[in-house]
Amino acid sequence: MLREHEIEIRVRYKEADPMGVLHHANYFMYFEMGRIEMLRASGGDYRKMEEEGLLIVVVKAECRFRAPARFDDVLKLRTRVKRITQAKIEHEYRLTRDGDELAVAQTTVACVDRNGKIQPIPEYLQQDDSSATD
Amino acid sequence: MLREHEIEIRVRYKEADPMGVLHHANYFMYFEMGRIEMLRASGGDYRKMEEEGLLIVVVKAECRFRAPARFDDVLKLRTRVKRITQAKIEHEYRLTRDGDELAVAQTTVACVDRNGKIQPIPEYLQQDDSSATD
Amino acid sequence: MLREHEIEIRVRYKEADPMGVLHHANYFMYFEMGRIEMLRASGGDYRKMEEEGLLIVVVKAECRFRAPARFDDVLKLRTRVKRITQAKIEHEYRLTRDGDELAVAQTTVACVDRNGKIQPIPEYLQQDDSSATD
Amino acid sequence: MLREHEIEIRVRYKEADPMGVLHHANYFMYFEMGRIEMLRASGGDYRKMEEEGLLIVVVKAECRFRAPARFDDVLKLRTRVKRITQAKIEHEYRLTRDGDELAVAQTTVACVDRNGKIQPIPEYLQQDDSSATD
Repeated sequence: MLREHEIEIRVRYKEADPMGVLHHANYFMYFEMGRIEMLRASGGDYRKMEEEGLLIVVVKAECRFRAPARFDDVLKLRTRVKRITQAKIEHEYRLTRDGDELAVAQTTVACVDRNGKIQPIPEYLQQDDSSATD
Repeated sequence: MLREHEIEIRVRYKEADPMGVLHHANYFMYFEMGRIEMLRASGGDYRKMEEEGLLIVVVKAECRFRAPARFDDVLKLRTRVKRITQAKIEHEYRLTRDGDELAVAQTTVACVDRNGKIQPIPEYLQQDDSSATD
Repeated sequence: MLREHEIEIRVRYKEADPMGVLHHANYFMYFEMGRIEMLRASGGDYRKMEEEGLLIVVVKAECRFRAPARFDDVLKLRTRVKRITQAKIEHEYRLTRDGDELAVAQTTVACVDRNGKIQPIPEYLQQDDSSATD
Repeated sequence: MLREHEIEIRVRYKEADPMGVLHHANYFMYFEMGRIEMLRASGGDYRKMEEEGLLIVVVKAECRFRAPARFDDVLKLRTRVKRITQAKIEHEYRLTRDGDELAVAQTTVACVDRNGKIQPIPEYLQQDDSSATD
């Protein structure tokens, strides 16, 4: 799998709150999009993973919000794999607008089956394909 | 099942948009809460219905937005069964704040199984228990 | 302004519900994106409109849901201006996946100022630029 | 202000994801509700604070997700003030269902004015009224 990937996200009207800025809870949805798109760019398919009974669950998440993102802003989200073990994957995120850092974050995810039982991280997620085109 | 039911909902910060008012898409989530709580007040349990393989899907929805609801407003949502056939249920909704009408709406729902195949509306949903305590 | 415009939307994980399909309330957020992007494609800017004190509010919305959209589906949303008067704009929407119709909808929007007072639809929104490149 | 407060939250259908469980981003919306309701229970009013030009912004948030919350679960959220300085407030959260711990979290919030400029935490938020009725 790729070790780093970047996507662009435009802040939707409904995602902004009465302050006119992206509500802080929505950042975590963006980070999830970052993970899913990095998997797709690596040749994987999260929907298919779920259909096959392997679910990714977030066990820990943290974010530092440095500057607000406003409705209609176009943001860049950099997602990076920090560490992979047999039991979990740690990702780092950096959200920017025109080069300015808006937020930095980390999450830890694990794999479970349909019954919530912890599963080992699949081989293909553990492999480093960072030589592939990003 | 009851034919009419009322719930109270306080508008959450995240549900309000940059105008400071409840985003129009969120009204439809409130109407769903109205249906689910009317079912509960009638002795039913929508989660259990789904676990048993019977899903309620919205096939049509319409709403007239008359006045905005602001963050932190406490609203009253009146949900009423307008018509039940073997194939579908039509509900009517009236959302108010201190007696002022904010929105009126209608939805049509149908029952499907896990594969999306249309199912007849269960007997117990068709029965009129409006003599029961609301 | 353009009279018709199309955008692509990928269904996000968080937008899908326990049935695994796009929650019906989220369709209305997609329609709003259709309106905002059609305005942008016409040279307009909804954020700027709001900053200048002119807000678009939805006064009526209706949708027929014909088939479910699943998480990760790539959808096409066709937004069309059906009618513009000095007081309101009516839009029509058609949401498809690989040519299959998932939903058709209509909304009516009006313009208000910061105090919620109805304003005439601005001239530049009323003009038909459909000869421009879509 | 109170130093600890508890609210009950029922997980809404739309808040659950294709796994059938509360989406992890929504926990942060719940924590915000915990803060707002603790303020209300203390005699404060967050809407009024915003109207008066004082906004609470989240500058840091972290959460450990220990067990999933399912649609329709009734949860208890315990919100506690961990530390208040002139510049920020740190809250701790504990989300449980029937006594089982589902998540523990921490946030740091600051006060800003309408222009995003940092403001001192108001006196009445700094005062300890924990002898008041919770």
